[in-house]
Amino acid sequence: MTVERVRALVFDVFGTVVDWRSGVARAAAPFLLQYGASNTDSAAFADTWRKRYEPAMEEVRSGRRLFVRLDVLHRENLQAILPDFGIQPAGVPAAELDQLNLAWHRLDPWPDVVPGLTRLKARYIIAPLSNGNVILMLDMAKRAGLPWDAILGAELARAYKPAPEAYLRTLDSLAMRPDEVCMVAAHNSDLAAARGCGLRTAFVPRPTEHGPGQTKDLAPEQDWDFVVKDFAELADRLGA
Amino acid sequence: MTVERVRALVFDVFGTVVDWRSGVARAAAPFLLQYGASNTDSAAFADTWRKRYEPAMEEVRSGRRLFVRLDVLHRENLQAILPDFGIQPAGVPAAELDQLNLAWHRLDPWPDVVPGLTRLKARYIIAPLSNGNVILMLDMAKRAGLPWDAILGAELARAYKPAPEAYLRTLDSLAMRPDEVCMVAAHNSDLAAARGCGLRTAFVPRPTEHGPGQTKDLAPEQDWDFVVKDFAELADRLGA
Repeated sequence: MTVERVRALVFDVFGTVVDWRSGVARAAAPFLLQYGASNTDSAAFADTWRKRYEPAMEEVRSGRRLFVRLDVLHRENLQAILPDFGIQPAGVPAAELDQLNLAWHRLDPWPDVVPGLTRLKARYIIAPLSNGNVILMLDMAKRAGLPWDAILGAELARAYKPAPEAYLRTLDSLAMRPDEVCMVAAHNSDLAAARGCGLRTAFVPRPTEHGPGQTKDLAPEQDWDFVVKDFAELADRLGA
Repeated sequence: MTVERVRALVFDVFGTVVDWRSGVARAAAPFLLQYGASNTDSAAFADTWRKRYEPAMEEVRSGRRLFVRLDVLHRENLQAILPDFGIQPAGVPAAELDQLNLAWHRLDPWPDVVPGLTRLKARYIIAPLSNGNVILMLDMAKRAGLPWDAILGAELARAYKPAPEAYLRTLDSLAMRPDEVCMVAAHNSDLAAARGCGLRTAFVPRPTEHGPGQTKDLAPEQDWDFVVKDFAELADRLGA
């Protein structure tokens, strides 16, 4: 395995870097209480919101819709799920939905992330290659202390993973060959798409991303270049 | 002056953050020696190279040429000026020109920059809004320790300053109102264009950007929101 050439590490964020489910549930709980859905499990609300993520991006990937930022998709999806929880969208001020939509900007990293990224940054360029947009990633990074060198990903590429353009345009911005860039993700599908574009791959399982009953992405499904238990082990393996 | 709303500071880079003339001259000196132009003042070489910067970007701004990154324009301009210094482009391996082109990635910041940015970063989002491309800004930041939160600017906006799109698309990515963003620059023309888009403005003179005989941008030409002598004073004024 030639990984000596790696110069940049690009990271999936939702699930790999931050615990979106707990963070969204935390932000949703007082909202659900206020709007009379207090018997709702706020984690189920987070799951329902997240379930519309892939289909919304697929509208863009398929070409049926021009590229719009993830904040826009999240906001539309939030409005769409309210009736499932007995809340009429017309009964909630738009500003409150805008505020709840910022839950995705305020997610906590897994405990190994900040120390691991800090080590990796000393030797490599580190940047998100997320479907999240620039200000979402920036707000999250400022709040959580994620020491990114740049914010790469969907908004710069104007394409959503796992479309090849998301990876290829990132390589182009980095002016690097594919084997100089390593994709780090907790999702086999993301790594498969990155490998399809020639990138190096690192799998970091996040077995509670989807809560205690998680069944997918518990183990690597290909011989990824690195399979590590957390960002500390990734830093060890990469000599950082 | 209402500047309490400012949440992000965006910076011009060439001249404002880094001393491009000295850095390019330093990189050019051994090249000129090697190719027989050793009686050339390497600062004059830097000036000549830089002189083609505006006209090259104007091709893009005018719509006569599709957006290409600054690295591409710099490389073309380098090739174009060689005969002015008695060097035949065909006599220089392309890889050597590629290497010299990276001089723009390896520029030193003015002495007040890193401490000033470090203070400002604690309170504000800080990012370049430069005509330089992503990997140019990244390489420069990693080498010099510029603690950017993100790399904004021409490549993300796909527009070169002072075109309004460069500022407006940056505001859009930040999802901020114009009065929440302050442009920091050593160039009155950059600040005038930023003000035209509603941004706040900070002028930091760099009186030796163009060498000892500099005649322009020695003083503010409008009542910019801030006029400061360096980034330390900017941090003072912004409560950082």
